[in-house]
Amino acid sequence: MVNQLKEYEYAKYLPEKSSIGGTITTEDSHVHLSFGYPNSDLFPLQALSEAASEAILSGGHLALHYFGGDGINKTKQWIKESAVHRSIEVDLDQILTTSGAQHAIDVAARTLINTGDEVWVEAPTFFGATQAFQLAGAKITSFPIDRNGLVVDEVEAALKKRKAPKFIYIMPNFHNPGGVNLSQDRREKLAKLAEQYSFYILEDDAYGELSFTTDYQPSVYSYAPSHVIYIGTFSKIIGPGVRIGWIIAKGEVLSKLNIFLQGSQTNPLTQEILAQLFTKLSFQTHLTSLIDDYRVKRDVMVEALQQTFQDHISFHIPEGGFFIWVRFKKDIDTDELAARAFRNGVSIVPGTSFYQDNRPSNEIRLCFTYCDAEQIKRGVRILADTYFSIVKSDVEEIKA
Amino acid sequence: MVNQLKEYEYAKYLPEKSSIGGTITTEDSHVHLSFGYPNSDLFPLQALSEAASEAILSGGHLALHYFGGDGINKTKQWIKESAVHRSIEVDLDQILTTSGAQHAIDVAARTLINTGDEVWVEAPTFFGATQAFQLAGAKITSFPIDRNGLVVDEVEAALKKRKAPKFIYIMPNFHNPGGVNLSQDRREKLAKLAEQYSFYILEDDAYGELSFTTDYQPSVYSYAPSHVIYIGTFSKIIGPGVRIGWIIAKGEVLSKLNIFLQGSQTNPLTQEILAQLFTKLSFQTHLTSLIDDYRVKRDVMVEALQQTFQDHISFHIPEGGFFIWVRFKKDIDTDELAARAFRNGVSIVPGTSFYQDNRPSNEIRLCFTYCDAEQIKRGVRILADTYFSIVKSDVEEIKA
Ligand SMILES: Cc1ncc(COP(=O)(O)O)c(C=O)c1O
Ligand SMILES: Cc1ncc(COP(=O)(O)O)c(C=O)c1O
Repeated sequence: MVNQLKEYEYAKYLPEKSSIGGTITTEDSHVHLSFGYPNSDLFPLQALSEAASEAILSGGHLALHYFGGDGINKTKQWIKESAVHRSIEVDLDQILTTSGAQHAIDVAARTLINTGDEVWVEAPTFFGATQAFQLAGAKITSFPIDRNGLVVDEVEAALKKRKAPKFIYIMPNFHNPGGVNLSQDRREKLAKLAEQYSFYILEDDAYGELSFTTDYQPSVYSYAPSHVIYIGTFSKIIGPGVRIGWIIAKGEVLSKLNIFLQGSQTNPLTQEILAQLFTKLSFQTHLTSLIDDYRVKRDVMVEALQQTFQDHISFHIPEGGFFIWVRFKKDIDTDELAARAFRNGVSIVPGTSFYQDNRPSNEIRLCFTYCDAEQIKRGVRILADTYFSIVKSDVEEIKA
Repeated sequence: MVNQLKEYEYAKYLPEKSSIGGTITTEDSHVHLSFGYPNSDLFPLQALSEAASEAILSGGHLALHYFGGDGINKTKQWIKESAVHRSIEVDLDQILTTSGAQHAIDVAARTLINTGDEVWVEAPTFFGATQAFQLAGAKITSFPIDRNGLVVDEVEAALKKRKAPKFIYIMPNFHNPGGVNLSQDRREKLAKLAEQYSFYILEDDAYGELSFTTDYQPSVYSYAPSHVIYIGTFSKIIGPGVRIGWIIAKGEVLSKLNIFLQGSQTNPLTQEILAQLFTKLSFQTHLTSLIDDYRVKRDVMVEALQQTFQDHISFHIPEGGFFIWVRFKKDIDTDELAARAFRNGVSIVPGTSFYQDNRPSNEIRLCFTYCDAEQIKRGVRILADTYFSIVKSDVEEIKA
């Protein structure tokens, strides 16, 4: 039996393995601070169950076809209304629904990138995005973020010296993993640069709704609609399992993106269910319950980190989203820390995963939304014990 | 305001517009013989509605997460069992679920094709597939089909003369649009050629379950599992709107394909619903009701075509699937026929859409599953009137 094809040449930009994975352990007591997941207890299951059953009975004869039923436009109507919070005013036909934000990123990558093209990203950034850019054949360059998001001055300096990229991929709200927001003046400035140097901005706003304050920044899209592809998702506010996200764009790029999305590539049945859900669920009440829960758990994690690690770490306290990005003051191998912590019963993501060049990193990402408060405290405790045992043995090694 | 980016270079393999469309008219009396759609009246809405509501209540706390719940494995278990009818024996981990067969084709294209690589297809073939191959940068060559499917001898002759393709894309059962099946000896032979010349076969079995006879051919996969990527879908047997299909493969290519599918790109919620559906619906009874309905409507269409067109056309009577592929004996512009028929109230797909080189074609595709018997008769009647008015005016032009 032949099991592999002789000298078969697969697509050359395939990575060795997917960057998208997750810790797999079935140990009940294991604490998953690695997963970037919402709190399962807050899934609106009752309303969703009723919505699904009604969507199918009343709309299934259309929603089960490729073209789908009314639910698609109703879902887009909801997106249109919620976009107003981002200072975005659009017609329904400027909204394209996708199978989640990841699909939206993939579609944008395939629309904009030719082999060898430059794409600029933040450092750190979301690994699902860089994988999509690599698969499309991009050369990736990264620019630092600070507590006010992407350092736009460095982007400007680069634009003055070299060819502009095809696009810049940014997460302006509750950055994954950084937890920071892009300041308003940087938004404006970046939008201006896109116009001046003729590139697109891929604005990934996966966490935008989950703000713990009443402060909302206008989207980058609102400053330069012709130069921005805006991306949103229901994953963080309803549940990743519905696999529905969206793109907002205008002009030529909108029709190009749409080439990948015609013929109902995006699930019409799930959109019908979402449309019904919006009639059954007070979305504002639901969102408030998410925000209240996540704010409390952010506080729990912040306090646990400060108490256990004291001055060994520094971090920005995020005003929303899912993540705290922790930097160790001592040089420490965070891959080893993650491996040891895993054996001790807690999962974290080592910082290197968030750098497109896989550089060594003194940072780790912790998610505060998935676990409950007790698990967060226990998880941080175990992590600190693991950390100090490494640091201590390092000190002993040096002494010895 | 700038509306387009100056000299912006989009991905170079983007087509001008999507090949996937559909006639859009809201006229109630219009007859859609163009849509390749199932009969909406046979969607198992009641069972699906109950399945959805229960899936969410009992499994939603997992199925709404990226990783999904038990439904994914249960759906794969169903796929595994039904694959036995195609003489395919697999483990669950050889099955990858996708967002429909179209997504499966796209993933295969992106895994196997580098810019400029050769892909061989049938002529005619499914336009959704050729679009995916073009987007991946393939050069496409086509080989004729006859009443026994792809003419494998011509493929063999080509292999002797030139470089083997990266893969051959075929529809061995109830070909879209040809309606034919690949004969058993050709399956065997093609499988052997794939082994001998080291290429893959992309076996698209979208219509395999919809056989009007009890005759089942073994899949091409069963003859050369290491050289075939097998594709199936729930679109034709449950409904396209669920957007769930699958890939069966083995060895190295399986892990490569999986790079695109990790991280639950495929909807876990819909898979949970399908898993519940299989416990509520006697699938065999459901399938029999589809087959009985479609067989009757095939007969209605065959009779209507014979009565109205008489010896002006020829066609193969399909033993399953959705389509009749009609060839006109006179040379006729089928694009014009389609445009005129549309104005007269019936939609058809002109043959040229099914040729990757858009060659002129004397053929049209008619779908007999979506409309009811009365509509089919009326549609064929209108089509025949349109045809004869064109032929008659041609004769008059020649006389004049
Ligand atoms: C910044 C960012 N973008 C996109 C995604 C993917 O979201 P979706 O579930 O909508 O595909 C994630 C999920 O982790 C994310 O963190
Ligand atoms: C031969 C063939 N393959 C694939 C597809 C796409 O099916 P799905 O709805 O599963 O994406 C179709 C649908 O028309 C088809 O005819």
